[in-house]
Amino acid sequence: MSEEKKIPYKIYLEESEMPTAWYNLRADMTNKPAPLLNPGTGQPLTAEELSPIFCEELVQQELDDTTAFIEIPQDIRDFYKMFRPSPLVRAYCLEKKLGTPAKIYYKFEGNNTSGSHKLNSAIAQAYYAKKQGLKGVTTETGAGQWGTALSMACAYFDLDCKVYMVKVSYEQKPFRREVMRTYGASVTPSPSETTEVGRKILAEFPGTTGSLGCAISEAVEVATKSEGYRYVLGSVLNQVLLHQSVIGLETKAALDKYGIKPDMIIGCAGGGSNLGGLIAPFMGEKLRGEADYRIIAVEPASCPSFTRGTYAYDFCDTGMICPLAKMYTLGSSFIPSANHAGGLRFHGMSSTLSQLYHDGYMEATSVEQTSVFEAAEQFARTEGILPAPESSHAIRVAIDEALKCKETGEEKTIVFGLTGTGYFDMVAYEKYNNGEMSDYIPTDEEIAASIAKLPHVE
Amino acid sequence: MSEEKKIPYKIYLEESEMPTAWYNLRADMTNKPAPLLNPGTGQPLTAEELSPIFCEELVQQELDDTTAFIEIPQDIRDFYKMFRPSPLVRAYCLEKKLGTPAKIYYKFEGNNTSGSHKLNSAIAQAYYAKKQGLKGVTTETGAGQWGTALSMACAYFDLDCKVYMVKVSYEQKPFRREVMRTYGASVTPSPSETTEVGRKILAEFPGTTGSLGCAISEAVEVATKSEGYRYVLGSVLNQVLLHQSVIGLETKAALDKYGIKPDMIIGCAGGGSNLGGLIAPFMGEKLRGEADYRIIAVEPASCPSFTRGTYAYDFCDTGMICPLAKMYTLGSSFIPSANHAGGLRFHGMSSTLSQLYHDGYMEATSVEQTSVFEAAEQFARTEGILPAPESSHAIRVAIDEALKCKETGEEKTIVFGLTGTGYFDMVAYEKYNNGEMSDYIPTDEEIAASIAKLPHVE
Repeated sequence: MSEEKKIPYKIYLEESEMPTAWYNLRADMTNKPAPLLNPGTGQPLTAEELSPIFCEELVQQELDDTTAFIEIPQDIRDFYKMFRPSPLVRAYCLEKKLGTPAKIYYKFEGNNTSGSHKLNSAIAQAYYAKKQGLKGVTTETGAGQWGTALSMACAYFDLDCKVYMVKVSYEQKPFRREVMRTYGASVTPSPSETTEVGRKILAEFPGTTGSLGCAISEAVEVATKSEGYRYVLGSVLNQVLLHQSVIGLETKAALDKYGIKPDMIIGCAGGGSNLGGLIAPFMGEKLRGEADYRIIAVEPASCPSFTRGTYAYDFCDTGMICPLAKMYTLGSSFIPSANHAGGLRFHGMSSTLSQLYHDGYMEATSVEQTSVFEAAEQFARTEGILPAPESSHAIRVAIDEALKCKETGEEKTIVFGLTGTGYFDMVAYEKYNNGEMSDYIPTDEEIAASIAKLPHVE
Repeated sequence: MSEEKKIPYKIYLEESEMPTAWYNLRADMTNKPAPLLNPGTGQPLTAEELSPIFCEELVQQELDDTTAFIEIPQDIRDFYKMFRPSPLVRAYCLEKKLGTPAKIYYKFEGNNTSGSHKLNSAIAQAYYAKKQGLKGVTTETGAGQWGTALSMACAYFDLDCKVYMVKVSYEQKPFRREVMRTYGASVTPSPSETTEVGRKILAEFPGTTGSLGCAISEAVEVATKSEGYRYVLGSVLNQVLLHQSVIGLETKAALDKYGIKPDMIIGCAGGGSNLGGLIAPFMGEKLRGEADYRIIAVEPASCPSFTRGTYAYDFCDTGMICPLAKMYTLGSSFIPSANHAGGLRFHGMSSTLSQLYHDGYMEATSVEQTSVFEAAEQFARTEGILPAPESSHAIRVAIDEALKCKETGEEKTIVFGLTGTGYFDMVAYEKYNNGEMSDYIPTDEEIAASIAKLPHVE
């Protein structure tokens, strides 16, 4: 116990202890994630084919599955210092409230204006766009956290920023739009009439509340048709997981500083950006046989790509103009119900995480919305942080695991990712506060129908 | 320059370096702040007379103008560890953008769910209420930050929390209400029909958008008429400035750690809670003749109690049921225009700060709303934090002072208080983004009219 007392409520690294290189998990994978395919030829995409969509250096990062460490440019490290290191927090108050012998830690990424971890990759992508001399970038955003992060990064480097925001989030979160506008971005609800693919989707599904898949299609179309623009993405891609590895590297450095070894690492999973970043160095140890951890992905029951999807090549977008990625997917035509975790409404999952899950290196579980908000409320009241609905998926499972420890008496060490804050999710909290929140779980038939439309790849 | 490089972007104290006692500025004042008076008798209020309104220990703190250091109870120190120490940030990016030789630091109090420094006093007041065995507390809130802070503190100690929220803020910030409700508080827009004083004010001014003064009257009425309840206040009072001294103590410890001596300290001023806390140890040195600093209070041009008010005894509330305090005031009947810095719409100013201002220990200046939002936008885009409108008053003056240094070439060290974030102020930012924001400055006649109604005290 006396040893434990030395662990502060919040572990902050010194600036000098912050990572100077990102960790590329793929370098340690024996079974590499399957390559992106050209939907026309069915062949792996070359750097040349990708460069009309992405910045050149980001294309290199996307395709590089052998370099373990990639240096973080000094400009990005300087920007990181404005909001990093993020604290690794010991949840003393939550442990006490639960009466659990488990030790709970969370890596809190919400203490920046984007409200989440998304800024880690946004600033990197903006940096490479600026370095290439581009005018601006386009993107999609779901919950709005990625769009906000990108608008902040673009303001810093004086780049134009066009954001397509999933319509349901645009309507649930009007203030998100104003944050992005304050940072100088333009924001369009998706699907919109401003693109060919948007007009097509609206014609087919006039009442749609949109999806990340739709918004991606629109943003890619605008990027490829505009001079001096490229597309950037906040999740799913290998490059994003690379940048987000800063979360896991800091977490591991903070734990190592106090000699703490976690038993399990829990993260919410939409496209995989937070989870892939948080687990990176731990998964690396596991892949190299140096350590073992339970690694748990938590997804919403309304959009369960890991737990109910299939492992196959699919489009990343609804409009089917993007490359094909091999991943756990519900089918790119799957449009999830309007659950309040906008950031977890993607039909697929990062190829890297999909391969790791397929190879048995991690587990996945799904949770329902109302139980997620119960956990969120309990967490807010004890730990003093109002969590984002997305993050609260991880909180739900961390609490459940801590309660199992209470039953068994095991003093397990649980680490989870608290990806962000819920200040722009008050419409959802209001529904929960009023007892008006419901759950929606897609039927087997719904999922089968969209999976039946998967592209044929040999 | 090499010396300077050692100063990190953010200075965090270790847990062991956090203050263990609050500093009571009044102990070092030769001219003590004038005592609260009983409006009936015109005599200084006794502890006995105050105890139906405030908790016993808080009454002691309110009246104690001789004890310099008051220990922070362990339970409060533990709660502080969840969100403190707050960072002292070196604004490297802002300095670079302005091209100023000035060195700018800000103490950032917004990294907690209440979004501001208000939690420092809320947890203390809730603690003493719990210790006294009370059922709950009542309060008013302007911008909503104090109400949120109090609801968080009450959730932690399992106390009932009734919040009267200034109507204009209630309407501008619907999501604030839901944060408070998530923490279990009840929230009523003020003036309301639920109190005698509210009904009276509504009868007299049917279209009023409310004021802190009205809301205070309602909350006090409910507290004194309900068994097991007391009233708590987020600003103005001596006890609040005492608790908020933790801001200044941490700031000073962080500066001392790096051998930095500020030339000026700047804070926004509504009732004085942030400013009084931030400047406390620096003002102490000044009072004891150990050091000199410029200390600058910044208030909105729409509610300029220091710069255009009069120094006299006045009611703290519009309903005139509260004790009389001697302060710079615009008159308790003054209802400021609906500017967007709800937290700065109070007609008076802390008695302690009023006495110090009267005695020439500090300066005051007022700024207009649109110029405040210009500063807010510039700060957000360079420093990556979206500031609260209240805090942005201090940013405006810090930037102006830094630009003066640019002209003169002086390398002054500027410290300002960044009291909170603006995530719940997007209605105001939207107006600014759309170019629809205007300024309102009260006429001399308006101010004279409300000052003419001041109570007569000998």
